[in-house]
Amino acid sequence: MAEHEDDLAPEVEQDEDDTPLTRSLIARIMYAVETQDREMLWAEMEPLHAADIADLLEQSNAYDRRRLIALYGQEFDGDILSELDESIREEVINLLTPQVLADAVRELDSDDVVDLVEDLEDQQQEAILSVLEDSDRAAVEQSLTYPEYSAGRLMQREVVMAPEHWTVGDAIDFMRHAKELPEQFYHIVLVDPRLHPVGNVTLGRIMASRRDVPLKDIVEETFHTIPVTRYDGDVAYMFNQYHLISAPVVDEDGRLVGVITIDDAMAVLDEEHEEDIMRLAGVGEGGINDSVIETSKQRVPWLAVNLGTAILASLVIAQFELAIAQLVALAVLMPIVASMGGNAGTQSLTVAVRALATKDLTGANVWRVLRRETLVGLINGLIFALVMGAVGVVWFGGPELGYVIGAAMVINLVVAGLAGAAIPVIMDRMGVDPALGSGTFVTTVTDVVGFFAFLGLATVFLI
Amino acid sequence: MAEHEDDLAPEVEQDEDDTPLTRSLIARIMYAVETQDREMLWAEMEPLHAADIADLLEQSNAYDRRRLIALYGQEFDGDILSELDESIREEVINLLTPQVLADAVRELDSDDVVDLVEDLEDQQQEAILSVLEDSDRAAVEQSLTYPEYSAGRLMQREVVMAPEHWTVGDAIDFMRHAKELPEQFYHIVLVDPRLHPVGNVTLGRIMASRRDVPLKDIVEETFHTIPVTRYDGDVAYMFNQYHLISAPVVDEDGRLVGVITIDDAMAVLDEEHEEDIMRLAGVGEGGINDSVIETSKQRVPWLAVNLGTAILASLVIAQFELAIAQLVALAVLMPIVASMGGNAGTQSLTVAVRALATKDLTGANVWRVLRRETLVGLINGLIFALVMGAVGVVWFGGPELGYVIGAAMVINLVVAGLAGAAIPVIMDRMGVDPALGSGTFVTTVTDVVGFFAFLGLATVFLI
Repeated sequence: MAEHEDDLAPEVEQDEDDTPLTRSLIARIMYAVETQDREMLWAEMEPLHAADIADLLEQSNAYDRRRLIALYGQEFDGDILSELDESIREEVINLLTPQVLADAVRELDSDDVVDLVEDLEDQQQEAILSVLEDSDRAAVEQSLTYPEYSAGRLMQREVVMAPEHWTVGDAIDFMRHAKELPEQFYHIVLVDPRLHPVGNVTLGRIMASRRDVPLKDIVEETFHTIPVTRYDGDVAYMFNQYHLISAPVVDEDGRLVGVITIDDAMAVLDEEHEEDIMRLAGVGEGGINDSVIETSKQRVPWLAVNLGTAILASLVIAQFELAIAQLVALAVLMPIVASMGGNAGTQSLTVAVRALATKDLTGANVWRVLRRETLVGLINGLIFALVMGAVGVVWFGGPELGYVIGAAMVINLVVAGLAGAAIPVIMDRMGVDPALGSGTFVTTVTDVVGFFAFLGLATVFLI
Repeated sequence: MAEHEDDLAPEVEQDEDDTPLTRSLIARIMYAVETQDREMLWAEMEPLHAADIADLLEQSNAYDRRRLIALYGQEFDGDILSELDESIREEVINLLTPQVLADAVRELDSDDVVDLVEDLEDQQQEAILSVLEDSDRAAVEQSLTYPEYSAGRLMQREVVMAPEHWTVGDAIDFMRHAKELPEQFYHIVLVDPRLHPVGNVTLGRIMASRRDVPLKDIVEETFHTIPVTRYDGDVAYMFNQYHLISAPVVDEDGRLVGVITIDDAMAVLDEEHEEDIMRLAGVGEGGINDSVIETSKQRVPWLAVNLGTAILASLVIAQFELAIAQLVALAVLMPIVASMGGNAGTQSLTVAVRALATKDLTGANVWRVLRRETLVGLINGLIFALVMGAVGVVWFGGPELGYVIGAAMVINLVVAGLAGAAIPVIMDRMGVDPALGSGTFVTTVTDVVGFFAFLGLATVFLI
């Protein structure tokens, strides 16, 4: 289901502005802030979801944000902090009064507190932990002992479990009399006497079964446990691949320690996407809420790498100064060969990076994919060689320049296809994220090869 | 939580090969196919999930795929068809015997059949619909009347609903005696007498509440209904934004017609991402399973656009042939200015495209973002102007060439920041997907401006 939007039937409603944050609502909220009308502000913001309030704060400038938070006061909810983009979370926490911050944090589940504090500096982290009750604080500190980006950081510790020999009736009686059940849960995890998970039963199946049915007769067919140290990106992949709704997390002895639900996995999947697309462009961790200086700092490294590779390409051109001095048309045409190669290389690269991310490109088909990309480069090279050959003849009046540019085009597009697919595969084998800067490497190859092939052939045949 | 992988703590387990499809399993499966050992094939494939079998078929070549399917025979499951990539789905359907196909399709839920048949040609579609029972066929045909990429195509029609005045006890008694409940459900939808949904109650809350509690006292705080004609990308956004697990779908009169669950929304989110990344690279709907000719066809259009824009840039260079003939160093250095501009423009562009996709870039902050990108371009332009100025002095021995390339660098990076952010915003306002080919437009701007600024300044000050 690709090529989504442009062939939408006219009846599909796609409303870009269908967010509760309409222009007129934002205007009313800012009016309330201007006039310091707290009642009006509360009334206007009452229907908003915490995620929308977080968006509002992110889209405001720092000055408006400060005034808005000051006026909003004790209504400030812990969930807003959870939803806020990291780039301004610290700033917002500093704007809250100690009392408001304490109330906000105490409302949160332990996994949300973990998510909140894990990137804060020690001092802010301590300020938040100190307002928690002792048991909550212990739970949060326990979670923080798991490595960053691990399943342990993602899971919630509250799990509804049942011994494997229970029946549906036992489970229902247990739940009915349990003091406290998690806010959101969809499965009961069956465990053996050593607390090893052995199966998942959905609440729906429990509801639909007779009281005397053993739970182990109605476990779900697909069952996966997740090691607590597992990389969260792999967890997200697993949820997406196997359509999981929740999955138990186990420690190194295989004992149940928590559960991960699909909404957390979906958030990770979204972050992984963001990372892929940002890394392909060499943007680092940038978001649109970072400051100018911060953003500039994030982008300089890849621009510096690009400068190095651009100079490399220029050194190739410098070898042919004499040829260019004799035939200036070469300088006019050479960027075309390089540009087409860069474009074709980026196409192959993107397909390969995406296929690696979705685990569709493996040892089983890597040679087939490399061969295919090279062949596609050859075919497209031949097509554009014909076109450019003709352009060369018309523009510069002689067939020779056309032959040369056509031949260079074929060479460069074949190399583009091969390098575009091979470079991310090699990076992946070396344990490096294939999205990270592979675009720069591929265009370096196509620039160098493009200039060398075109100017080299021209020197041999035209000068 | 960006910049994920490279700062992973050493304890995080990230195992790229952690898929059930190990090399040795694939080898054993292919051995069974070679020796036509059906028993062994069934035994080896028995533990695999349908999604893994689909991956296996996708990663095999067409010849192995045909032999594998022929030997696997009646074990072929409907879920495998659902999981298969569209590019080979048609081929696989044609390989199945009518009996196997009929058995496979009859196992599927109606929403999976819809997903399966919606992209097939009429003849194959009819072949599949004809094996369904009448009621299932009617349900599928009803769903197909909703536009493609609408909520109506995504939803399942089986919903568990309850009148709004029911208590927990009423709901439990109803479920316990219901003939047939959906395979997967997590909420009961409360409806008024006209079948308008008024709230969602999780099964967990029902389990944890006393029998006499009215359902409407324990509805979830966050409740959204989805119009049946709503674009599925917007549905995925809503699930991600509000952490929904399931949401009722309503027709134009507001009546409940189905329900969408988060696993379907997650699949759409993944597809949307694929589309963004592919479109940014100008790849069209390509996947790694398409044929060489098919792939070549998909990629030619954007290469053709790129050729046009590259020729435009060359026309700019052609205006300065005389200057280049007098000072060949210009030809050597000009690609550096263009390349840096292209890179910086792509950085701004990617941040803007992503922010538009996540609805973080709106009317409220568009001017701030444009100003920020332009300022970042100015700062990075100044940094690399200094660097390139120094390179120019060392390489070509005079300060004048350094001044000129430095000035051109500043101009081009400012333009890159502005154009990179403005072009996707303008495309979005015009109702065009901002990912679609915006990269080509941005690099056209930076090529033209880069060549013009550098060669123009050189003509004025150096020649």
